Amino acid sequence: MTDLFIIDDIIKTALREDVGTGDITTNSTIPADKTISGKFIAKECGVVCGLPVVERVFAIVDSEIKLSCNVADGDYVEKGTIIAEVSGPARSILTSERVSLNFLQLMSGIATRTNACVKQVEGTKAMITDTRKTTPGLRVLEKYAVKAGGGHNHRYNLADGVLLKDNHIAAAGGITAAVAAARGNIPHTLKIEVEVENMQMIEEAVACGVDIIMLDNMSVEEMKKAVDFIDGRALVEASGNMGDRDLREVAKTGVDIISIGALTHTIKAMDISLRFKV
Amino acid sequence: MTDLFIIDDIIKTALREDVGTGDITTNSTIPADKTISGKFIAKECGVVCGLPVVERVFAIVDSEIKLSCNVADGDYVEKGTIIAEVSGPARSILTSERVSLNFLQLMSGIATRTNACVKQVEGTKAMITDTRKTTPGLRVLEKYAVKAGGGHNHRYNLADGVLLKDNHIAAAGGITAAVAAARGNIPHTLKIEVEVENMQMIEEAVACGVDIIMLDNMSVEEMKKAVDFIDGRALVEASGNMGDRDLREVAKTGVDIISIGALTHTIKAMDISLRFKV
Amino acid sequence: MTDLFIIDDIIKTALREDVGTGDITTNSTIPADKTISGKFIAKECGVVCGLPVVERVFAIVDSEIKLSCNVADGDYVEKGTIIAEVSGPARSILTSERVSLNFLQLMSGIATRTNACVKQVEGTKAMITDTRKTTPGLRVLEKYAVKAGGGHNHRYNLADGVLLKDNHIAAAGGITAAVAAARGNIPHTLKIEVEVENMQMIEEAVACGVDIIMLDNMSVEEMKKAVDFIDGRALVEASGNMGDRDLREVAKTGVDIISIGALTHTIKAMDISLRFKV
Amino acid sequence: MTDLFIIDDIIKTALREDVGTGDITTNSTIPADKTISGKFIAKECGVVCGLPVVERVFAIVDSEIKLSCNVADGDYVEKGTIIAEVSGPARSILTSERVSLNFLQLMSGIATRTNACVKQVEGTKAMITDTRKTTPGLRVLEKYAVKAGGGHNHRYNLADGVLLKDNHIAAAGGITAAVAAARGNIPHTLKIEVEVENMQMIEEAVACGVDIIMLDNMSVEEMKKAVDFIDGRALVEASGNMGDRDLREVAKTGVDIISIGALTHTIKAMDISLRFKV
Amino acid sequence: MTDLFIIDDIIKTALREDVGTGDITTNSTIPADKTISGKFIAKECGVVCGLPVVERVFAIVDSEIKLSCNVADGDYVEKGTIIAEVSGPARSILTSERVSLNFLQLMSGIATRTNACVKQVEGTKAMITDTRKTTPGLRVLEKYAVKAGGGHNHRYNLADGVLLKDNHIAAAGGITAAVAAARGNIPHTLKIEVEVENMQMIEEAVACGVDIIMLDNMSVEEMKKAVDFIDGRALVEASGNMGDRDLREVAKTGVDIISIGALTHTIKAMDISLRFKV
Amino acid sequence: MTDLFIIDDIIKTALREDVGTGDITTNSTIPADKTISGKFIAKECGVVCGLPVVERVFAIVDSEIKLSCNVADGDYVEKGTIIAEVSGPARSILTSERVSLNFLQLMSGIATRTNACVKQVEGTKAMITDTRKTTPGLRVLEKYAVKAGGGHNHRYNLADGVLLKDNHIAAAGGITAAVAAARGNIPHTLKIEVEVENMQMIEEAVACGVDIIMLDNMSVEEMKKAVDFIDGRALVEASGNMGDRDLREVAKTGVDIISIGALTHTIKAMDISLRFKV
Repeated sequence: MTDLFIIDDIIKTALREDVGTGDITTNSTIPADKTISGKFIAKECGVVCGLPVVERVFAIVDSEIKLSCNVADGDYVEKGTIIAEVSGPARSILTSERVSLNFLQLMSGIATRTNACVKQVEGTKAMITDTRKTTPGLRVLEKYAVKAGGGHNHRYNLADGVLLKDNHIAAAGGITAAVAAARGNIPHTLKIEVEVENMQMIEEAVACGVDIIMLDNMSVEEMKKAVDFIDGRALVEASGNMGDRDLREVAKTGVDIISIGALTHTIKAMDISLRFKV
Repeated sequence: MTDLFIIDDIIKTALREDVGTGDITTNSTIPADKTISGKFIAKECGVVCGLPVVERVFAIVDSEIKLSCNVADGDYVEKGTIIAEVSGPARSILTSERVSLNFLQLMSGIATRTNACVKQVEGTKAMITDTRKTTPGLRVLEKYAVKAGGGHNHRYNLADGVLLKDNHIAAAGGITAAVAAARGNIPHTLKIEVEVENMQMIEEAVACGVDIIMLDNMSVEEMKKAVDFIDGRALVEASGNMGDRDLREVAKTGVDIISIGALTHTIKAMDISLRFKV
Repeated sequence: MTDLFIIDDIIKTALREDVGTGDITTNSTIPADKTISGKFIAKECGVVCGLPVVERVFAIVDSEIKLSCNVADGDYVEKGTIIAEVSGPARSILTSERVSLNFLQLMSGIATRTNACVKQVEGTKAMITDTRKTTPGLRVLEKYAVKAGGGHNHRYNLADGVLLKDNHIAAAGGITAAVAAARGNIPHTLKIEVEVENMQMIEEAVACGVDIIMLDNMSVEEMKKAVDFIDGRALVEASGNMGDRDLREVAKTGVDIISIGALTHTIKAMDISLRFKV
Repeated sequence: MTDLFIIDDIIKTALREDVGTGDITTNSTIPADKTISGKFIAKECGVVCGLPVVERVFAIVDSEIKLSCNVADGDYVEKGTIIAEVSGPARSILTSERVSLNFLQLMSGIATRTNACVKQVEGTKAMITDTRKTTPGLRVLEKYAVKAGGGHNHRYNLADGVLLKDNHIAAAGGITAAVAAARGNIPHTLKIEVEVENMQMIEEAVACGVDIIMLDNMSVEEMKKAVDFIDGRALVEASGNMGDRDLREVAKTGVDIISIGALTHTIKAMDISLRFKV
Repeated sequence: MTDLFIIDDIIKTALREDVGTGDITTNSTIPADKTISGKFIAKECGVVCGLPVVERVFAIVDSEIKLSCNVADGDYVEKGTIIAEVSGPARSILTSERVSLNFLQLMSGIATRTNACVKQVEGTKAMITDTRKTTPGLRVLEKYAVKAGGGHNHRYNLADGVLLKDNHIAAAGGITAAVAAARGNIPHTLKIEVEVENMQMIEEAVACGVDIIMLDNMSVEEMKKAVDFIDGRALVEASGNMGDRDLREVAKTGVDIISIGALTHTIKAMDISLRFKV
Repeated sequence: MTDLFIIDDIIKTALREDVGTGDITTNSTIPADKTISGKFIAKECGVVCGLPVVERVFAIVDSEIKLSCNVADGDYVEKGTIIAEVSGPARSILTSERVSLNFLQLMSGIATRTNACVKQVEGTKAMITDTRKTTPGLRVLEKYAVKAGGGHNHRYNLADGVLLKDNHIAAAGGITAAVAAARGNIPHTLKIEVEVENMQMIEEAVACGVDIIMLDNMSVEEMKKAVDFIDGRALVEASGNMGDRDLREVAKTGVDIISIGALTHTIKAMDISLRFKV
């Protein structure tokens, strides 16, 4: 995770939020020199994700806390697995317990769900990707979790890829005009994607050489027909409530990408607890 | 929502994350002087929450955007309801569309789930509350959404309430000693809560006059017995995987509070879309 | 002092303010490799406070500076006491001298004054507390200093305790209505305090079960009468220009808390100097 | 007050500190649409200072609050004077009451004390100035308050003036060498001041053409002799516990400047209250 | 310029840097109510760029300043042209004069130089682009200036495009392996570029279907040969000290892009002054 | 470089800007445990500047990177000189390569140009200084580079020196009035400079005892006459497009200071590359 400062900023915001002006319970009852050790235990099976974040949480709170991980991000674990062990100053560990778990459970939840989707399309060429429907402020972590679960990432934000939707197309005066406008304005290093709703739009998109065509809310039959027509001249992405679709059916149409908003907007935290040795 | 700067900070972080160095698609295709109008439509029923946040998103991006809301935070809406209408500069609205929806769907999802829990305990005295298992960085919004759904809030963070758990109690040498230590150290304006696992702990907690007793992972029978014993001498809180329990059964034991981590750690975004007029 | 980032933020603001774009005097005249050692000396008697802040100041400026403390926060020292000794790179120490002293003198001044108040009520059950009349931006340090001086803290800010004053009561339609409104809206973990001016208000406050009753600007006789009436049903706090009152007289009325704005709004810095070895 | 962002930053820090996650008392009891008006009243005489800060506090919290001032910063007021009147949304005003008063009382306290010192030296040529012994983080406000009280400012920080003290002189190998080192290194737009303890040092300082000579902790006789010797060849500053000295005596020695740390490190807040109309 | 907060952040940093704790000259001599008007005049010919930044500088300092522009970013102006006129509060305008000019001169300098390069390749298909050799902290403005001058932008940063150089290729075990590694790891929305030094590398790059091939420091003959071989199967970029090359010669080889570090690392500010009416 | 946080802030901004959400090229192709070493090589002769900044860049990115410098800031190097050697984790070094070079080339470019100016006036008493025409946000580095090149610094910003120009003089009612206004308002530690255009203004400036007189855009003859008249009663500064003047001619008039905006507004980055060992 080499994004330098973004993750530390997120962690510090979370710690400020949760610790406020100090953990009055811990500071009142735990001697300053007491040490403690504990284990992060999977209380259900799933794909673990977020251990480097947990490591940074502890490092930021107290450099004397030691974390040793038994698994790595992306590993599938059974219920009962000891994911990691932590030891060090009791005050620091207790104060950062909740924040470390909140990150680990959220990210593991996303990785686990992504992994289930990836498994559904196994054997096809379809990649599972996320969308921009991420939790505000946590995109960098959520996109990382999608990859840990075996998925791929879609564009990161509005600046690093063009996605022409109906409004852009209408305002520019059609797909061809919109693509030309984009091409004349953006770095040559970025790709252009167009969202289409019917074969006519697909034909126009292919004709002007777009890089990616997004099939919006199409039936399996429509998708199949689209893939056949496009025939490798652009990447084909299936989109639109894919969280509720039969992904295998969709994948078998031959699309290259299935993008699923639900990977990051409908989250079931993985149940993980931090149990201390008595 | 009077927390002054916190929400604006969250919104700005979300916008920086999603917009990056600029919405290259919109800027390439939409004329600077074009205006647009659109409607936020509920694509499923639920409790709406987050409209003031949406309002701030638009205000921060462009003061010329107008938002007019047909419902208020906390209102239950049917599928198809037009929640709000937006109009103004097309570039600004398109650039902020995703961020505004991400907030609105997340917060409405939490309010909706909370509301379902509240309805389950209707007629009992039990209040439904959140926990500290919130999405890192978004606690202020998520706790607000819990209230919009009819729930109540637990303590905000580690600084504004004492919650003595097993480690604190063990380190201090028992409940009585832990309570005394806390009392001698914290503002007299804060309450003291103790997490207990059995009747013996309850007896000790009551004896030293704690304000709130948290029953951790107890059966309905144990809870009933505890409530009877405590008999109003402290508030009684039921806790521990309450998201998977029969809340009505729990409420009928006479507990004052049922705290549910799943309200904020297991989130199903409410399906809301922003549809533009063609 | 476990409030994680708040104190470091305060220190960095102070250093930016005092150092600006660089200590041109020191950088022009002191060789980069010169070392120096010095002593923090009490030039008057008092209660020392702020040593961990001084330690952080030096750590932030230059990790090679060593500070060794002969006393601890909260210790009473006689004039002439060597409070601490510092050694390390001369440039770094000279550049941070003023900021370290500004913190130490301010916090020791508050601890000393608080301690004098605490001694006046010795043997009574009254606790001396601070208020929200603190120096803007330094509340966390000033409340810490009050504790170092033997006092207790009142609520930290407007979010972690309810204090109903005349305007709130009037707007809500009386104490009973105001208390009910607060109770329905706040976390169950927070207490409710009411400011009262006469016996009628006290009766109403007790009747609706508030946690703390603040007697505003009452005479000793009125306070005594109030304490008798309340009779343990709520904590009793004496307030209103307590900095100018005979605290022992007030304490002897039986109040639980005496809150004194002057502890933090009228400050006499303790005279402490940093003397270097020649 | 044209320092652009610094004061707003200070105010926002103070508001975040005092309001936290929201004023739960006010929000629970005061209707959102209620308005209120109140008066800032001097409860003792003194020099008012900080009204533009109060204005910014209110503007930052809620642009609908109106403040109208009857006096200006630097005006001396009698006890009972209505300094300013405020009106607008009740919630916003109540939430910002304490912060606005904390600034106003602190700054007026400094202006008042400064003014008393200035009056003591009236008729002499001595200017009263502050030092760097200011409250961490509030220097810009405190130096402004000193000017409002009729005093002058010393250098703002370590970057905008050279002040050679014993350590600098010793390390450089004497006053002459230290002055030369400084001159060769700093902008030609800055002045050089030397702290001296005896006539020999004064002679050397004058000989190498320093701009200001600071007489440290000298008797009145010594100061007089120094002034006579220097004879206008440098500005002369009296320094060292001036807060406890007879300023008129000091001024009559003919020094140009008397710098007083106590102006900003020993603060008695001016008693000002905000009284609301019932 | 729709990058929301980035430009305001840059401007505020510049103002804090230049104004410090206040413009003491202006505040001492210019009455607070004095107004002034002035003209931005081109003292040499060139392509103007940065007017929206100047507009934001003034808006941030004082909303009462009015700026009216006679030309737009990207316009070529002759020496003596009145670029824009400003009027409003004298203090605010004088305090922000230098910062506004520093931005305008820098950005116009870049636009002017870029424009000169663009003109050299007129009639060829080659686009002139910038690189990542920009002034630290000002990339968003400098890339905007390149576009104002008629150039195009290369990738914005390390996150929004892959550029495989010798170290990446060596570590991955050759171009084919490196491209595969990148493809498996990055969003499908991003392009892959490879830096090549000879025909063998070009052949391998084409074979594995990269999107862009960067010819590093090649002679005109080598470039021509490369373009012929690639034959539209990838975009071709000429790179390497292009600031010192005959751009027309390079363009005539048929390359698609010529990227020039010197556009942003070797800057001659355009001479523009702000002259006030007497 | 003891300005504590300013430089780190600048570096972090530059890294955030250049790295964005992560160096996808490096992370895809370079194994996490690979190490690398490389050399910073001067590709042209010049005065090196910025090595401590490069050191901080690497320290901030990864504390395991080692930098060893063969020369120091201010050293003149021949083409081909190995300025410094770096070794450590390959990912971290590759990710920070561009940012480190951008700083080093910019600062060395400024030092080199300054040095050329300084050499032109060698043997005269004239000091070469910078102005406030610096790159927004980088003033602290650019003024440092000017000193590394043998130049001196002018005032840092609008707060640490008075410079009265035509508008200030006109508004105040003449030089005498303007000087008096400034003197009454500013710290006694700051100097007063006046910009003059003719002998009459010089006479008035000398008469009221200003510290520095800036001769604006004068001919060599006018400057000589001015120096003769002022005769040591104030420092004399030559200013106005000095970047295009014959500096030796100007210096020989006897002026004390020649201030040159072009030192920092017209920048030719020194050509330095980071070459890795294969």
